[in-house]
Amino acid sequence: MTGKRTAVLVVLDGAGDRLIPELGNKTAFQAASTPTLDTLAREGQSGLMNVIGPGMTPGSDTAHLALFGYDPSATYPGRGPLEALGAGMDSQPGDVAFRANFGTVEPDFTVVDRRAGRDISKEEGRLLQEAIDGMQIEDVTVRFVHTVEHRGALVLRGEGLSAKISDVDPHEVGKKVLTAKPLDSEAEKTARIVNALIRESFDRLKDLEVNQQRISRGRPPANILLLRGPGKHHDIPTMQKRYGIKAAVLAGGALYIGTARYVGMDHIHVEGQTGTIDTDFDNIAVKVIETIQSGYDYVFVHIKATDNASHDHDYKQKVLTIERTDAMLGKILDAVSNSVVVAVTADHTTPVSVGEHTCDPVPLVLWSDFIRPDDVIAFSEIDAARGGLGHLRGMDVTPLLLGYAGHIHKFGS
Amino acid sequence: MTGKRTAVLVVLDGAGDRLIPELGNKTAFQAASTPTLDTLAREGQSGLMNVIGPGMTPGSDTAHLALFGYDPSATYPGRGPLEALGAGMDSQPGDVAFRANFGTVEPDFTVVDRRAGRDISKEEGRLLQEAIDGMQIEDVTVRFVHTVEHRGALVLRGEGLSAKISDVDPHEVGKKVLTAKPLDSEAEKTARIVNALIRESFDRLKDLEVNQQRISRGRPPANILLLRGPGKHHDIPTMQKRYGIKAAVLAGGALYIGTARYVGMDHIHVEGQTGTIDTDFDNIAVKVIETIQSGYDYVFVHIKATDNASHDHDYKQKVLTIERTDAMLGKILDAVSNSVVVAVTADHTTPVSVGEHTCDPVPLVLWSDFIRPDDVIAFSEIDAARGGLGHLRGMDVTPLLLGYAGHIHKFGS
Repeated sequence: MTGKRTAVLVVLDGAGDRLIPELGNKTAFQAASTPTLDTLAREGQSGLMNVIGPGMTPGSDTAHLALFGYDPSATYPGRGPLEALGAGMDSQPGDVAFRANFGTVEPDFTVVDRRAGRDISKEEGRLLQEAIDGMQIEDVTVRFVHTVEHRGALVLRGEGLSAKISDVDPHEVGKKVLTAKPLDSEAEKTARIVNALIRESFDRLKDLEVNQQRISRGRPPANILLLRGPGKHHDIPTMQKRYGIKAAVLAGGALYIGTARYVGMDHIHVEGQTGTIDTDFDNIAVKVIETIQSGYDYVFVHIKATDNASHDHDYKQKVLTIERTDAMLGKILDAVSNSVVVAVTADHTTPVSVGEHTCDPVPLVLWSDFIRPDDVIAFSEIDAARGGLGHLRGMDVTPLLLGYAGHIHKFGS
Repeated sequence: MTGKRTAVLVVLDGAGDRLIPELGNKTAFQAASTPTLDTLAREGQSGLMNVIGPGMTPGSDTAHLALFGYDPSATYPGRGPLEALGAGMDSQPGDVAFRANFGTVEPDFTVVDRRAGRDISKEEGRLLQEAIDGMQIEDVTVRFVHTVEHRGALVLRGEGLSAKISDVDPHEVGKKVLTAKPLDSEAEKTARIVNALIRESFDRLKDLEVNQQRISRGRPPANILLLRGPGKHHDIPTMQKRYGIKAAVLAGGALYIGTARYVGMDHIHVEGQTGTIDTDFDNIAVKVIETIQSGYDYVFVHIKATDNASHDHDYKQKVLTIERTDAMLGKILDAVSNSVVVAVTADHTTPVSVGEHTCDPVPLVLWSDFIRPDDVIAFSEIDAARGGLGHLRGMDVTPLLLGYAGHIHKFGS
């Protein structure tokens, strides 16, 4: 192998598990029929991975930063910027971003509904977005994008902004919207901007025609914007800068798209790719193959439904998602096996028995048609524990992929 | 598992070993009958651990700091503060503490007996302690506690103290007590205080009635205090601060109690718990169960006799201690298995063939009734080498325990 290959990282979200009694004391990976993953395990190298570190329970965002090769303790910007990037917004170093949602308040700002009935349509969202987006407060520009239902993302751009401010959402109906307070001396301006923004959002939204129509239909008006998860976009080097590579993300969930864009990946839209079991696995396979063939050096594919099934304690759906992902992988490898290095793993364990992320390590398989095999012949948490890759951290994955794919220069001579 | 559990760390001191010819070339762990430990290995996860790092021979104090999750290279305060805390003293950040012992000198400070005959009784110790404790030199308060025989611990409290001073003990009979010298510019005051303290101890002790009685019995008088092992109590975050947990230590030896108190554990007294094979294993089991049930989040249990047996080259006693510890563990698990996460390990290897600490790694088993098993079915150095935890460092143990026990917050969202 002298030529460069495309590094392909496939993450099954929350797919790691513990022994599941209903599956004969097997994990979901053990119970699922996974001919492709087992081939990768037989021909490649397996390992067990603490994505953040032993005993550490990863969030999905921090886990993905680690998997992309970024130390989350130094680079995690908070949820806001990742959601904003995931919503297609242009968050940049220095910006402060928030998760935003429409709520319903009385004129005295007492919260009636924290989610404005949850039923904001796409068209309503467009009109509400128009009312907010582009707002200017002092020297700060406010960008806002409506995403789904009551949700959106908001970016502040201006001089001297800080994410160190307190919450405005009282998280309880019947209480008044809170005043954002600076949590350190550098956050005074941002707190002032946010408080003005919230008041201004009420003034702009309360009499909008879309809200008058909602009221006439007996629906709560979306008459205020509530903000949470503030985060400041760090100035981190992109994957392009670090490795000189072109990287792409194919994902259904905004958080994963956002985290990938944060490290410089291009988002490749796949018709029918969603965060659920109904995601179009065939279309994803076709688009992954196209992306590889179009010259991308690094392709990240995210499958979310394993995590949803785990949170719902639904082991059947978890197994089914793994099997469909396995079939998708088979199609990809049939087409491009001699031009890729592939890693398949999970970002964390979400046992169906628990329904929440836990600290249990996840299996990883690394495959290419030239890689030296170990003696593991199946893909699972149990098998991977005695694999040739040993025990790894999440931050090892991207260097391994890029190293074998020929994208990391020799160190020394 | 969604609720929190109690993390239980059981350390058999110096219990790691090499192949022992008298035991048919087995280690003590392999030769001992350990039904409980083998169950933990079969149902849990094993690993091999370099407590400090590959090739590093741990001291008992540094090893325990690492096992508690503290980097010993950054947090080890020297022996003095740990002994002082182990003696029940109130050592605080900024204090300088010493191991102290009574000796016998001529009026010109020539050392006659570095240990004053070793036979200071409890009552004599009390009277000698009264003469020293509370001494004031410049702005520095001297606290002293007699522990056993000629031994005690001494704490200096005042402004600008440093542990960087040279030794006063000439470590040889017939030589004069040395003058403490500052080893850097910030230690001048402390050296001056210590030299004054040594002289003052002679003045206060030489004519005491307890010493006149010793002389009349033909015993050497305890007429001077010799200090060694100076250390400065660092300002480190307690386990309570780092993890929000309540932690407890059950140990027979002062050094282990002191090291545990240094990181913020409460010492739970167990009637009959000692540093020898005669320690009351049944009482320890009862008290461990009580401590778990009383709401402690982290319980550290220390068994010292394995190390003593190793230093004495006594493989039979080593095996016997392991078997008694195994029975003790069985009793604990019979009572509380569904409310704990347990780790059992050693702080270092002390081969009976060597009689000293060595750098050989030690086995670790991590067990809970929900943990994913590996394929190791017995607890030993040899079996653990292919366990599902792989190869670990001492500093991994407490995060692993607390992560599985539900005491570490998810990082990210």
